[in-house]
Amino acid sequence: MRVSVLHGPFDGGPGKLVLEERSVPEPRAGEVLLKILAVGVCGSDVHYYREGRIGSYIVTSSLVLGHEPAGQIVALGEGVNGLEVGQRVSLEPGVPSPYSTQTLAGHYNLDPAVSFFATPPVDGVFAEYVVHPAAFCHPVPDSVSDAAAALLEPLSVALAARQAAGISIGDRVLVAGAGPVGLLISQVAQLAGATVTVTDVRADRLEVAGRYGADSVFTAQDAPEVLPEFSVFIDATGARPAITAGLQRLAPRGRCVLVGMGAETVEVPLQLVQGRELNITGTFRYANTWPTAIALAAAGAVDLDGLVSSTHSLDQVEEALLAGEVPGALKAIVRPHG
Amino acid sequence: MRVSVLHGPFDGGPGKLVLEERSVPEPRAGEVLLKILAVGVCGSDVHYYREGRIGSYIVTSSLVLGHEPAGQIVALGEGVNGLEVGQRVSLEPGVPSPYSTQTLAGHYNLDPAVSFFATPPVDGVFAEYVVHPAAFCHPVPDSVSDAAAALLEPLSVALAARQAAGISIGDRVLVAGAGPVGLLISQVAQLAGATVTVTDVRADRLEVAGRYGADSVFTAQDAPEVLPEFSVFIDATGARPAITAGLQRLAPRGRCVLVGMGAETVEVPLQLVQGRELNITGTFRYANTWPTAIALAAAGAVDLDGLVSSTHSLDQVEEALLAGEVPGALKAIVRPHG
Amino acid sequence: MRVSVLHGPFDGGPGKLVLEERSVPEPRAGEVLLKILAVGVCGSDVHYYREGRIGSYIVTSSLVLGHEPAGQIVALGEGVNGLEVGQRVSLEPGVPSPYSTQTLAGHYNLDPAVSFFATPPVDGVFAEYVVHPAAFCHPVPDSVSDAAAALLEPLSVALAARQAAGISIGDRVLVAGAGPVGLLISQVAQLAGATVTVTDVRADRLEVAGRYGADSVFTAQDAPEVLPEFSVFIDATGARPAITAGLQRLAPRGRCVLVGMGAETVEVPLQLVQGRELNITGTFRYANTWPTAIALAAAGAVDLDGLVSSTHSLDQVEEALLAGEVPGALKAIVRPHG
Amino acid sequence: MRVSVLHGPFDGGPGKLVLEERSVPEPRAGEVLLKILAVGVCGSDVHYYREGRIGSYIVTSSLVLGHEPAGQIVALGEGVNGLEVGQRVSLEPGVPSPYSTQTLAGHYNLDPAVSFFATPPVDGVFAEYVVHPAAFCHPVPDSVSDAAAALLEPLSVALAARQAAGISIGDRVLVAGAGPVGLLISQVAQLAGATVTVTDVRADRLEVAGRYGADSVFTAQDAPEVLPEFSVFIDATGARPAITAGLQRLAPRGRCVLVGMGAETVEVPLQLVQGRELNITGTFRYANTWPTAIALAAAGAVDLDGLVSSTHSLDQVEEALLAGEVPGALKAIVRPHG
Repeated sequence: MRVSVLHGPFDGGPGKLVLEERSVPEPRAGEVLLKILAVGVCGSDVHYYREGRIGSYIVTSSLVLGHEPAGQIVALGEGVNGLEVGQRVSLEPGVPSPYSTQTLAGHYNLDPAVSFFATPPVDGVFAEYVVHPAAFCHPVPDSVSDAAAALLEPLSVALAARQAAGISIGDRVLVAGAGPVGLLISQVAQLAGATVTVTDVRADRLEVAGRYGADSVFTAQDAPEVLPEFSVFIDATGARPAITAGLQRLAPRGRCVLVGMGAETVEVPLQLVQGRELNITGTFRYANTWPTAIALAAAGAVDLDGLVSSTHSLDQVEEALLAGEVPGALKAIVRPHG
Repeated sequence: MRVSVLHGPFDGGPGKLVLEERSVPEPRAGEVLLKILAVGVCGSDVHYYREGRIGSYIVTSSLVLGHEPAGQIVALGEGVNGLEVGQRVSLEPGVPSPYSTQTLAGHYNLDPAVSFFATPPVDGVFAEYVVHPAAFCHPVPDSVSDAAAALLEPLSVALAARQAAGISIGDRVLVAGAGPVGLLISQVAQLAGATVTVTDVRADRLEVAGRYGADSVFTAQDAPEVLPEFSVFIDATGARPAITAGLQRLAPRGRCVLVGMGAETVEVPLQLVQGRELNITGTFRYANTWPTAIALAAAGAVDLDGLVSSTHSLDQVEEALLAGEVPGALKAIVRPHG
Repeated sequence: MRVSVLHGPFDGGPGKLVLEERSVPEPRAGEVLLKILAVGVCGSDVHYYREGRIGSYIVTSSLVLGHEPAGQIVALGEGVNGLEVGQRVSLEPGVPSPYSTQTLAGHYNLDPAVSFFATPPVDGVFAEYVVHPAAFCHPVPDSVSDAAAALLEPLSVALAARQAAGISIGDRVLVAGAGPVGLLISQVAQLAGATVTVTDVRADRLEVAGRYGADSVFTAQDAPEVLPEFSVFIDATGARPAITAGLQRLAPRGRCVLVGMGAETVEVPLQLVQGRELNITGTFRYANTWPTAIALAAAGAVDLDGLVSSTHSLDQVEEALLAGEVPGALKAIVRPHG
Repeated sequence: MRVSVLHGPFDGGPGKLVLEERSVPEPRAGEVLLKILAVGVCGSDVHYYREGRIGSYIVTSSLVLGHEPAGQIVALGEGVNGLEVGQRVSLEPGVPSPYSTQTLAGHYNLDPAVSFFATPPVDGVFAEYVVHPAAFCHPVPDSVSDAAAALLEPLSVALAARQAAGISIGDRVLVAGAGPVGLLISQVAQLAGATVTVTDVRADRLEVAGRYGADSVFTAQDAPEVLPEFSVFIDATGARPAITAGLQRLAPRGRCVLVGMGAETVEVPLQLVQGRELNITGTFRYANTWPTAIALAAAGAVDLDGLVSSTHSLDQVEEALLAGEVPGALKAIVRPHG
């Protein structure tokens, strides 16, 4: 099978993508073999490609990127029940150690031994086939397209943000960042009963926000001086100015969830956090989100296909990784089988 | 009656304390008149005295300091039920607007219209008599001394911190700062079933921590390189290095509560907050804490009298405000009637 | 002014409604005088009329019924800010004692001293004018009709049920009872992101459920033997068979909220509650719900006007109270000024 | 090795215990082989012995009883890290399916596929040796005796009850039932900062309660007519009168946790649950409790050895099962190696 592999030198500059031949893996007990149908390209793939690292996650040897996959089951390992050859599934990319402290506590995303596609040194899914534990392959109905099945991963990021923020009916939510994750957070917040405002530095990115749940939008530079106060602020930028501005707009007991990566540190005004008893947290991926993500996609509540701005074959992974630079681009999809 | 009044010039330097004669106030409907028995001196009193401000709270005209009072009821206003002349009470210093949004939501401490002793422009209790709404005068049993009744206020700060952190049995709690509030937080955390570690830059302050619930202590400079991971970190210093160090020592899903005031901003490492899904919040005073504070004091579970390191008369308020500079000093008490 | 008064003999049989002349009350400090525009008729009004009691609430002397009022401000008492003569408002019927334990804890609905329209011995709003504390008069925009402003009260019951159940995105909610409250719970649950199933013994009542958020409906007698498991069950019937059946359909960790009144006791299977760790609670009216109720009504998210099945004048209160017996009837409205 | 096996006829009457020879099992990958040092006898063992069932759990063929074991590791299966031969451990008796919905959600005790010692058809630990997954073998320090290590199981039941009730500092807790579980709940509630009242029908059982955290006790028949109101009620009897009485004594927003098994159904007064917004739940075993249980035992905070009222060898299992009938008996221990 063909696999797109990122090679070094991993010295801080961009890597090199090479299409290689590897043998199709065999599913062990509890695993299934999957033909990869579609893979979403994520900002973290781009960081690994360009800089060879994200924070403390560092690429040191050749790596397969891609961690937002949809596939079709082509073989079942021993002891797999409840799945069938031919089924289309969305793959949850992180597989925790089964009986670790964090897993048994319901936070399997925080298990330090989690194996996650395309996080060094674990290979990702820019490949024609992969094997994966059956429990992390979630069947999708026919009404969910291959691309949408892949994009249940960023939708899961949004669902985790909503849960961390406890967004529900009556909340007034400010979302900073109108990229795919910001838009999905906006959409999920609206579906959870909140009124939503989205902000971004780029006006063009805000145009689409109305289709993803936003009741109102403003560009960061045109921020009204006196804003209605928000009960929730979710940052999907990772940028210090956005976070600082967002915190200021929170009402007493407001909750802030930091989803976007980027800044090394965030500057938090102490008297503000105390005087309004603000609550700040961050999310790391997601846990237990796929059932809800599938239900939302199947019900047509979230337009995942509308996020796709370009589609690429396996020999175009580099193009796919660079596609985000095009104005108006939202999400690139790689289809390993063309 | 005699009142100790802080006078200006409020130009950033220290003020001047003058003992003045004022007429004894009369209780209105729902209020009681109290003879002040004891008042704890708080760091915020010292800040107003020395710098004329704390953050955005600024003294602009003469002000009576003191907000940790115990008193004896000497007269009842119209319509007061459930209290009697002669009763000793602990005064909760903040009185919210009754039907404000925050009050009705159970967060009366966050009501912007709250009237709080010794917070400009509201006069405090370094006085022989004050009037106060009956609902915020909490009777104490004979087993609770006047000083202890006054110190239910800092105990309330500690109870609010415990609640914000959700400390319970099995928690491993790190408390930074072994001043009166830090010690009370340590004590409350231990009473709530946690194992507690207290840290401070001054070794002498840690000596007393064992009597206030600490299972172990260390000075900030002697911090072991590898520490057991904590589920909760509470800062009672307001100092940036203490907060930065404390955050690093939190386990996944760890909770941080910022109680100490001082630093303007706190530097929060983004990847840490996200990768461990830490939760950071701050507390502003307290709400609904007096019943529990009284129960703890009455049961002898907290040694409030043991915090008193000096006692002063009303003409010695300045001395009382400076008493904290003495090594080993914890809490100064002013007794307006000598 | 004219007032519709319920007279006795209060011996368990129906009372007698008499239209009487009373003088228009004067607003005291903090109160406003309101011209009543519309009043929703509630099942509890019917119980007081027919049996003179609901559980431990017993009518012993003449009483004005009606507790779901919308009005227009005609005069302001002393010290009222933020409201203006001429404004249309929805009246929150329960006014708690300001500084009681329950009020300060954020549960003002549980304050034993709460004064609530049409709960003996407090008179209700089947009258041309009433006075009410300003803080419990909530302005509504022009887009909200008089009837809808009145029906923010049952909408508040639904919002309280949602909050007690913690309903959010991904929940599968079963609502028993398709009367006005059940329909509004269904609608609110759907707006909060849940999929909703409504059940009732009467098929005709289920017809309208689709307009109020229900994804599916079934009559109690046609209940499928194997049902998808629900994460939440809300009873809006108060009937033992409905509650028993609903509990059986809850998944592990399922939450049940008992809203409907009627049965004296509920039979709860112990092994079921333990083996699935079910959670059962009940709601008593509501607290802090009006801002969200207004926002939902203003946004057109809930069709309150669609619930109105008949409108009556002040001399037709008896008809209004009996209107619920007509098949298809949902909500009767009394308009005191015709 | 010798094993004590319960034989039928399982027709509702008592079974027959036979000491049999079986071969020592071999640990598979991820498992360890344990020499059983001590086993606590639980009421459920007695039920299986006497009636062949507990609710819907029914014994249909021969079964080894006992599910509260302490052991010593004698061999490690493949791939076991972090444990050593010779270590003394407390065995958590329930092993869930690793990637089931409930396990990944943090509620592994609710996994329908959980394998639990001495729950039909899974054999228990009245045996000289057993194998068990390493992750469910928790090392204990020398200061924890064999019997205490076994009794971490009922302590875990108490910890789960505390967590379900959210007991913390300031709570006033009523515990019904002064058997081993009731006493441990009392002790845990006190360690969590609550004041505790214990009630039982038998005065002799209450004598020991003071040593297990109770601030006050009363016999059910001598219940004072007016009791202080409790914020939490935990039933450890499973008896309808105890549950009915306990619910009546809860304050507004009070929480009830049903731990004791026995009654088929519980009668819940609807108006009480609604008017006070009570919260009722049940617990099923426990999850994630061993680390805290070990910390409490190691710190000497709970006197587990003080619960042991008799010790028996493997050929005295029947005596051990009947030991609870002796007045004053609390907990029987079986030591398979004498």
